[in-house]
Amino acid sequence: MDFRLTEEQELLLEGLREVLKEVATNEYLKECDDNHAFPQKIAEAFVEHGFALLGIPEEYGGTPCDITTQMLVTEEMSKFGVPFPCFSNSLLIDDILHFGNEQQKAITMEYAKKGLCAFSLGITEPGAGSDDSAMMATATRRNGKIYINAHKTFITEAKQRPYMLCLTRDLNASNPHKAISMWWVDMSKPGVKVMPWEKIGGNTAPTYEVYLEDVELEEEDLVGVEGEGFMNLMGNFEVERIQIAAGVLGWAEAAFEDAAVYANQRVQFGKPIGSFQLIQEKIVEMAIKIENMRNLVYKACWERENGMPLQISSATTKYYCVRAANQVIDDAMQIMGGIGYTKDHRISRLWRDVRNTRFGGGTDEIMIHIAGRAILKKYRNK
Amino acid sequence: MDFRLTEEQELLLEGLREVLKEVATNEYLKECDDNHAFPQKIAEAFVEHGFALLGIPEEYGGTPCDITTQMLVTEEMSKFGVPFPCFSNSLLIDDILHFGNEQQKAITMEYAKKGLCAFSLGITEPGAGSDDSAMMATATRRNGKIYINAHKTFITEAKQRPYMLCLTRDLNASNPHKAISMWWVDMSKPGVKVMPWEKIGGNTAPTYEVYLEDVELEEEDLVGVEGEGFMNLMGNFEVERIQIAAGVLGWAEAAFEDAAVYANQRVQFGKPIGSFQLIQEKIVEMAIKIENMRNLVYKACWERENGMPLQISSATTKYYCVRAANQVIDDAMQIMGGIGYTKDHRISRLWRDVRNTRFGGGTDEIMIHIAGRAILKKYRNK
Amino acid sequence: MDFRLTEEQELLLEGLREVLKEVATNEYLKECDDNHAFPQKIAEAFVEHGFALLGIPEEYGGTPCDITTQMLVTEEMSKFGVPFPCFSNSLLIDDILHFGNEQQKAITMEYAKKGLCAFSLGITEPGAGSDDSAMMATATRRNGKIYINAHKTFITEAKQRPYMLCLTRDLNASNPHKAISMWWVDMSKPGVKVMPWEKIGGNTAPTYEVYLEDVELEEEDLVGVEGEGFMNLMGNFEVERIQIAAGVLGWAEAAFEDAAVYANQRVQFGKPIGSFQLIQEKIVEMAIKIENMRNLVYKACWERENGMPLQISSATTKYYCVRAANQVIDDAMQIMGGIGYTKDHRISRLWRDVRNTRFGGGTDEIMIHIAGRAILKKYRNK
Amino acid sequence: MDFRLTEEQELLLEGLREVLKEVATNEYLKECDDNHAFPQKIAEAFVEHGFALLGIPEEYGGTPCDITTQMLVTEEMSKFGVPFPCFSNSLLIDDILHFGNEQQKAITMEYAKKGLCAFSLGITEPGAGSDDSAMMATATRRNGKIYINAHKTFITEAKQRPYMLCLTRDLNASNPHKAISMWWVDMSKPGVKVMPWEKIGGNTAPTYEVYLEDVELEEEDLVGVEGEGFMNLMGNFEVERIQIAAGVLGWAEAAFEDAAVYANQRVQFGKPIGSFQLIQEKIVEMAIKIENMRNLVYKACWERENGMPLQISSATTKYYCVRAANQVIDDAMQIMGGIGYTKDHRISRLWRDVRNTRFGGGTDEIMIHIAGRAILKKYRNK
Repeated sequence: MDFRLTEEQELLLEGLREVLKEVATNEYLKECDDNHAFPQKIAEAFVEHGFALLGIPEEYGGTPCDITTQMLVTEEMSKFGVPFPCFSNSLLIDDILHFGNEQQKAITMEYAKKGLCAFSLGITEPGAGSDDSAMMATATRRNGKIYINAHKTFITEAKQRPYMLCLTRDLNASNPHKAISMWWVDMSKPGVKVMPWEKIGGNTAPTYEVYLEDVELEEEDLVGVEGEGFMNLMGNFEVERIQIAAGVLGWAEAAFEDAAVYANQRVQFGKPIGSFQLIQEKIVEMAIKIENMRNLVYKACWERENGMPLQISSATTKYYCVRAANQVIDDAMQIMGGIGYTKDHRISRLWRDVRNTRFGGGTDEIMIHIAGRAILKKYRNK
Repeated sequence: MDFRLTEEQELLLEGLREVLKEVATNEYLKECDDNHAFPQKIAEAFVEHGFALLGIPEEYGGTPCDITTQMLVTEEMSKFGVPFPCFSNSLLIDDILHFGNEQQKAITMEYAKKGLCAFSLGITEPGAGSDDSAMMATATRRNGKIYINAHKTFITEAKQRPYMLCLTRDLNASNPHKAISMWWVDMSKPGVKVMPWEKIGGNTAPTYEVYLEDVELEEEDLVGVEGEGFMNLMGNFEVERIQIAAGVLGWAEAAFEDAAVYANQRVQFGKPIGSFQLIQEKIVEMAIKIENMRNLVYKACWERENGMPLQISSATTKYYCVRAANQVIDDAMQIMGGIGYTKDHRISRLWRDVRNTRFGGGTDEIMIHIAGRAILKKYRNK
Repeated sequence: MDFRLTEEQELLLEGLREVLKEVATNEYLKECDDNHAFPQKIAEAFVEHGFALLGIPEEYGGTPCDITTQMLVTEEMSKFGVPFPCFSNSLLIDDILHFGNEQQKAITMEYAKKGLCAFSLGITEPGAGSDDSAMMATATRRNGKIYINAHKTFITEAKQRPYMLCLTRDLNASNPHKAISMWWVDMSKPGVKVMPWEKIGGNTAPTYEVYLEDVELEEEDLVGVEGEGFMNLMGNFEVERIQIAAGVLGWAEAAFEDAAVYANQRVQFGKPIGSFQLIQEKIVEMAIKIENMRNLVYKACWERENGMPLQISSATTKYYCVRAANQVIDDAMQIMGGIGYTKDHRISRLWRDVRNTRFGGGTDEIMIHIAGRAILKKYRNK
Repeated sequence: MDFRLTEEQELLLEGLREVLKEVATNEYLKECDDNHAFPQKIAEAFVEHGFALLGIPEEYGGTPCDITTQMLVTEEMSKFGVPFPCFSNSLLIDDILHFGNEQQKAITMEYAKKGLCAFSLGITEPGAGSDDSAMMATATRRNGKIYINAHKTFITEAKQRPYMLCLTRDLNASNPHKAISMWWVDMSKPGVKVMPWEKIGGNTAPTYEVYLEDVELEEEDLVGVEGEGFMNLMGNFEVERIQIAAGVLGWAEAAFEDAAVYANQRVQFGKPIGSFQLIQEKIVEMAIKIENMRNLVYKACWERENGMPLQISSATTKYYCVRAANQVIDDAMQIMGGIGYTKDHRISRLWRDVRNTRFGGGTDEIMIHIAGRAILKKYRNK
């Protein structure tokens, strides 16, 4: 066994850190949060320093790299407190690069080269959250055209991105696994209505409710094969779970460092609060959780790279990490007290942002459901 | 033993509920939160219906009542999602009615009759949070005047209230228990500077940093006996802890009801999510925590009314209740998923607001410190 | 509200404590545990001092008392470390006094007057643990006789008690709620075989596997009405849950007191270990759990006495209390370290005995199942 | 990073498993536990198959191997439910091979070759548990002899092993770090008295109280340099913590497998209990804990092999693993219900045995103390 990063990985992270130190300052991130604005400057710096296309195949002008490296980059950005939308790019794009047509790919890469994502992901509906099979969005053919009717909810950056990858369901399909299709929807078309949802965190990635009323598409707007939309996305879900885990790991590390430094500096009753056992206990619990998260994330990456199945480990890793990160950040806030509760300190932002990850990308309960059954299956004939 | 409320209590709560149903609507409370505004309409309705002076002695025009009733009122308001500053009045005022001079009392009652508090409480300093004995604010006599120099922090509503009850310390006092004095500071005086702190919750009770630079007072501005300021406040601290517990209990009950109703209505995988064991487990854990909170709060009130010492039970009750309420509200958010994370639902406000109570009014760690030593003392000679 | 015991209750407990101090010594209880023997001396002392028939109606020569008093007695005995079988008598007997015939009642009272129980309870089967409806024991009529065939498991004191109240199921019954009957089985009859199960705790109440092979009974051996056996027991289940809760509460109090005294006396690093925050934290958590347990048990008793439904509160009280007691006793062991792990200290016995209560009398999981659905039902039309 | 075992390690474990399948049966281990007997047959099988001297330098006839392999062997044995004393040999022996004289080494190796340990470890005293510096055992020189006076407690296998490595303290030493010496005590000497302590678990490794009254030694009975005894043992403590972690990891894996198999087989309410979410939740939590334990143990081994400091990671790994293992085994017992509470099932033994590890080898609280301060130190000048 070997727990060491490669030299290339170390070098890459070092370079990344230098860029982040410059651009991902607490002041700038607070400003983005306050203004509910995407951290445009970070995207630009990434373009400038060549991080924007990491993980994208060479044929599209990208810089291919293994999944471990991608996750290390996610973790590192996140250690600087950078919010999610900045680092989810290469994974999302993957779907289009795999299943999209030439034009869709071209548009996607055009945006990717600017550090942006061309499209939002239209999956969730009011009645279809954990249960995707309850989706009610439809695509109907009429006179050689396709008409999309859908009510999608919790759609991240629906307004900021020019396209939406919209999932519809064939309500009459006999095989539910072959009922879902993906469509490339130009959001400037007639019939598209977008309404904001105001959340308490994740401000840099605004969320919208999207109504599509008889939005007219062409056959070429289909992405991939009809009826295989869900299958196509599925594979990505597992890596997405690892990425969420890597992201919250970084946030937890940021919060931990803030709290550890503060515990050394803050004096009460004549000594640093870090000399009290109740604070030491928190510090130890936090450090162990972070170590566990790190090991789970890196091991899942290694499994992926070695072609092992990820169904269980992606679910358990996501489940453990989002809960652990919520606890670590909450402990950090407790150590920092009132200071951490003010907007002056980034803990207060991390604390709000991280809560979202316990339902986004699959709820804790769904992770238990997926992993629990799969684990037990392995012991069935013993 | 008897766990029943009296008929008077039941009637009072019924009347209160009717007023609250009218005025403490989710829309109005959301509006106050969004605008960082005190819920003025609730204060007015309370004045109109005679709840504003509950718990204040008759001689001041109040409606005296026992501590249990006061806490039931706190809990009930809080069940409607009403934030803290609305219900902390009678306790705070108590200090002035006990130790203040005639003019201070008159001003205090003038505001109280409008459902407001005339003064903020100036205790915490940057270097004196959990450790009050580290206070650095001073009152210096010069030419028959008193000059206050202080840097106070986390002062609730310092800007909205015309006066501040400011604690100073005699840095040379030999007996640390006799070093603290209370002063009645007119906030419009020269030398007073107030700066806002932006928090992530508790918006209806804005928080400020207050600088007093050579603020000139008269001898009559002393509140109570010099050097006994801390002792005077101390007694109130115990009841304040019970009140925080009663307040978070109500919030937890509100969140629980929202989550239970939602679990019955929200359908996924063809049935209400409440029919899944993982949701049932949360519901049961939440219900038990609420029942425990209720019992602890009511019992502490009963102890107070029967002249029993509150040192241990006020600390354990505060400690248990704020943690339990944080967990219950967090569970409620988990049950409601994304919906609960948006500002459209009050869970998102309760979740931010309740976090504050794990440091405000004494941190979890201080509660352990107080209760742990006192409990062990009882077993010393066994 | 009133949290005070009545004077009668206080007096009764005082008397009880005097008897227990004499007879329920640590030495004697250890001896019973080591020898897997029923604490006969305690039963005798109870007979002598009039505690043996507490809670049994006057018409049978008993000393009636309310449920609160019975639970206070259970808690008090348990505080002395007395194991379960000593205090479950009046409840068990209740079934026979309600539904049994004259002869069954007479035998039952004959034993009760000696502080013993005449019969064991034959419910659980290898395939019917949490799920009673899966019972396979049958009673078949042939030539005016009844023949019982059953394999019962985890039957407490099956060997020590001369009779067994055996539940059978009519496998063809259309209404599953009317399928269960209770039979009075003389354990000396041909066809009865009893095999010991060795447990790791609860040694004073040995457990057996019981096989009944064509055991011949008469019609008069039926207890109560045929098909209503389960309904009859059901009612008792709720009170049994409260009693288990009261029992583990007493054990937790015993363990807590041992740990608190030890924390004051045990010196390491030059001071009592109770002066370390990590120990204080445990002490506070333990004290709060005990307070919560106490409140839950007493309130459930009060509800019962006031004719309120117990379905939810008996399940939540049992669930909370057995878990809390396990944690408190485990914490006590941690505070005492190696000493608590030896048989020289009663903590080691309490720790083994209390584990059983998380499945006995209904598992934690069944409690969640019962309470979760019932709680949600209350919020269905809101 | 690489999470794969080497081929040599895989082969070794395979061979080990074959031996263990033969000899470490549940029946045999239960028998040893019931009889409080060392599993002699396992020791013999290990000698026969060449596992007895694993990790011992070649010069002593051993089979050297890295620490990872040693821990994998510990974990594997433990997965078969083998109790501790069987696998702690090479580490213990290490002390003598490093610091002992030729005769001490010869005796040690003579026993080691039979799969046994020649000596017990005499550290703990009634007043010196967590706090070794409070040791009161003395070695006094008189007429060219050394006289040992000591009262040692919780000494594992003191009676079964012919020698004891006894630590004494120079009560007058000015430097407390140079006060401890190690002595090689022949337990058959006059003045040695050994009294059994009966524990509730760990039966195969009986524990004793040892009194040494003026036990006469020679100068050559000193082990290592006088005054450096504690330093010498210290280094081993870190590896001992990893080994305890590896040991409880294996037990947790054993318990998990039992519970997972049972959850698939046990039917209640018409389906395997593994299909209920409350059981799936436990299974997932257990699996994650085991994965975390595994990662922590392997990483600590890797750190050791790469010459990195182990102070923090040995303490956090021990702390996390013993707590996690206690929880996993407790969950396994809960899934198995009454069955797991009987001596028929090994869960009941693992559950008792594992509790000991939360104080043995350093309490949870001491681990927090060690790790907490060391972690904070790293953030001191940031």
